[in-house]
Amino acid sequence: MSGSLVIAGLGPGAEAMVTPEVTAALAEATDVVGYIPYVARVAPREGLTLHPSDNRVELDRARAALQMATTGRRVVIVSSGDPGVFAMASAVFEAIEAAPEWQRLDIRVLPGITAMLAAAAAAGAPLGHDFCCINLSDNLKSWEVIEARLRHAARGDFAMAFYNPRSASRPDTFAKTLDVLRAECGPDRLILFARAVSTPDQAIRTVTLGDATPEMADMRTVVIVGNAATRRVGRWVYTPRRAL
Amino acid sequence: MSGSLVIAGLGPGAEAMVTPEVTAALAEATDVVGYIPYVARVAPREGLTLHPSDNRVELDRARAALQMATTGRRVVIVSSGDPGVFAMASAVFEAIEAAPEWQRLDIRVLPGITAMLAAAAAAGAPLGHDFCCINLSDNLKSWEVIEARLRHAARGDFAMAFYNPRSASRPDTFAKTLDVLRAECGPDRLILFARAVSTPDQAIRTVTLGDATPEMADMRTVVIVGNAATRRVGRWVYTPRRAL
Repeated sequence: MSGSLVIAGLGPGAEAMVTPEVTAALAEATDVVGYIPYVARVAPREGLTLHPSDNRVELDRARAALQMATTGRRVVIVSSGDPGVFAMASAVFEAIEAAPEWQRLDIRVLPGITAMLAAAAAAGAPLGHDFCCINLSDNLKSWEVIEARLRHAARGDFAMAFYNPRSASRPDTFAKTLDVLRAECGPDRLILFARAVSTPDQAIRTVTLGDATPEMADMRTVVIVGNAATRRVGRWVYTPRRAL
Repeated sequence: MSGSLVIAGLGPGAEAMVTPEVTAALAEATDVVGYIPYVARVAPREGLTLHPSDNRVELDRARAALQMATTGRRVVIVSSGDPGVFAMASAVFEAIEAAPEWQRLDIRVLPGITAMLAAAAAAGAPLGHDFCCINLSDNLKSWEVIEARLRHAARGDFAMAFYNPRSASRPDTFAKTLDVLRAECGPDRLILFARAVSTPDQAIRTVTLGDATPEMADMRTVVIVGNAATRRVGRWVYTPRRAL
């Protein structure tokens, strides 16, 4: 098999955060596969075919990309942020596990700037001490699993970053998340809503858990909750390097 | 105050993982400050003064950089990986908290590819589901805090990434970490040692907790422990998107 598959992270939105190795992979690609808004970030050119697809079809998309690579194409699957953080890399390996002949392909994962780290940088350094990263989507896990993880993260005094906090199809998960966090961490804990980080629409808002409402998040928002020591300094929020 | 301070992440080692915005900040800098091996990654040029300093002087380094910026210089503090993950960003905000006049400076944090994400990409997708990120250095926290976090991470079935697993000055912490993990997760759980990721010295080794020994890690290693569902597929390791 002479084809190749690259699973590449485009970062959170700004071109200035796309790594040179991802740019190079896109320049050599014959085919780019991904969720519609991510493929839209790749400039069309002669010799490149774009294959945008809808959300929530990750496994079908992975299979189609692998199949295309077996025909000798140089295929790049694009993810926002980092492909290994709640994005396409796991879906590709799931597809390969079910069809081992794809293991013979040349496959590489290229990391990207994931949203929580871009959000943390824009806000200061709220993830400057131990932290957890949790996908709040309940498509692939139950609320009970999410709740248990929130409680362990809070009781271990981890800072937390939440992906996919809220969507129209499951409006209650994030409200329940805030209730659990208020019960575990108290009303004064800082929570940061970072929307559309690194894009012209970027908006960052820091409040206390006591003042946080579910409407402050949407699907373009990454949410960061501080640990017990996280504090404001001037216009920034940071977590000290030393544990309380 | 006309000077500026940028806290920039150089990524794990490969030039191809340095973001364009970091490259641009370095091109405009008058002064680059940082730990010796990170400053060594910046090419000397006319008009640029390099200020390498030793390890474990983060707060002194932050103060010196801020002081230099107040004189109108364009200062860049370089960190390996991402500056907000166990690196210089928190130290800068600690320094600013103690000397609020520095809040008036133009200060920006530029994210980078952090080691755990480069390691995960090189190995497959072991952080493809909820995970925790823990600094195993006990310089700034007690073993009791580390142990409690390990147990919460294991009981929440998080995958885990460990920074600074081992050094000559504290040879026992990582051995104790492996003992706690074996007790919590059992001997069959996968653990991945990724050394010098993205450099010519890169070496990645995956074993079970039962076969893991402390000598498999050093200070250039990032360690990733899977969750209960993490598995091998061909030459890769990945964590499925679905919770068990």
